[in-house]
Amino acid sequence: MSTKTRIAVLGGTGNLGHALAWRWARAGHDVIIGSRTKEGAQAAADDLNKRLGREAVRAADNPTACESAEVVVLTVPFAAHAAVLESIKPKLSGQVLIDTTVPLRPPRVAVAQLPEEGSAAEITQQIVGDKAQVVAAFHNAAASLLEGDDDLDCDILVTADDIATRRAIKKLVEDTGCRPINAGKLANSAASEALTSALIHINKTYKAHSGIKITGVQTDFN
Amino acid sequence: MSTKTRIAVLGGTGNLGHALAWRWARAGHDVIIGSRTKEGAQAAADDLNKRLGREAVRAADNPTACESAEVVVLTVPFAAHAAVLESIKPKLSGQVLIDTTVPLRPPRVAVAQLPEEGSAAEITQQIVGDKAQVVAAFHNAAASLLEGDDDLDCDILVTADDIATRRAIKKLVEDTGCRPINAGKLANSAASEALTSALIHINKTYKAHSGIKITGVQTDFN
Repeated sequence: MSTKTRIAVLGGTGNLGHALAWRWARAGHDVIIGSRTKEGAQAAADDLNKRLGREAVRAADNPTACESAEVVVLTVPFAAHAAVLESIKPKLSGQVLIDTTVPLRPPRVAVAQLPEEGSAAEITQQIVGDKAQVVAAFHNAAASLLEGDDDLDCDILVTADDIATRRAIKKLVEDTGCRPINAGKLANSAASEALTSALIHINKTYKAHSGIKITGVQTDFN
Repeated sequence: MSTKTRIAVLGGTGNLGHALAWRWARAGHDVIIGSRTKEGAQAAADDLNKRLGREAVRAADNPTACESAEVVVLTVPFAAHAAVLESIKPKLSGQVLIDTTVPLRPPRVAVAQLPEEGSAAEITQQIVGDKAQVVAAFHNAAASLLEGDDDLDCDILVTADDIATRRAIKKLVEDTGCRPINAGKLANSAASEALTSALIHINKTYKAHSGIKITGVQTDFN
């Protein structure tokens, strides 16, 4: 993967997708916003391009966005998660697939309700099989903070079944202004997914934009 | 609950139980170590009393330890969790029950494997019913650090179905040298339980004694 990565952000019209697209476009990556329709995606791309002051972000429907991408990022609500994956599956051929999905079931979003498969990330892995390299990340970063310009006081737990896939997105996490943490196997995505409900509760209780830091870790992972 | 609390630490011969008993005895609480036999518990109590320089910690078998306790703390391996709860259930009559259990399934302890009930804490709640006020905490604190004298750079996610039960252990968490965080309903214990496997992975990978901090939260909970 070159320094400049071609990234498809599916669900890039939502809060987290829009904010991640902003961070990566700002860092010089080649970003394609994906949505159900190209028109929906175009509005988000226009907004980002205006902010960037250059035509750096493109728009496409979700499957088309995946075609030429090296990295596909899934930022859709849990209710749409499986359907979007099925829709892009024909376009997957070895890309890195970053799953940010938290299995929230409105209205009780502040209470962890993990799926029986263990985590949303494991459902993703079951759906895409060996057609993509699944890595889970970004569950615990506040979209409202990513939408800004400052580095975040938040670590990103990066989980994937092999270390190579975790390494593959290390730089992309750093480019968002967060610290990547090698947090082990994909099943450990259950931790960051459940933690999101706890953070939602904390945000409400403490009137905060909370995040997490792993303490006792000074070194980079490699 | 008075400033001095009578605390039964079940599994107080293990690493986490021993370390918590140390912190609470040091803070002036009335600590009873529980174990399968009084003799096993006595060795741990003797060790702590020697370190304290006074006879402050007592020993009992698990059910007896619960009889006079205001707070019961469960620090046994997941494999023994249900059996110990059944053994103490006849002695429960409204105590606060702090469950520290992480559903680890050796040898794959660095991979989250939550039970189908959602979390160990929810199993605890199912077993004890309304005979105790269940609160989950201390999953993410390193026993090796708690065994020392310094405050920890680690937050404790405190989860219980009602805020009163979370509040009931706030001071006890502070007395261990950690910061308590109101993390919502008991089901959110899934987050701290799964996170323990991630932290075990992180400890191995980074050669660290890792913990977590919730960022963006400056105020105490009340």
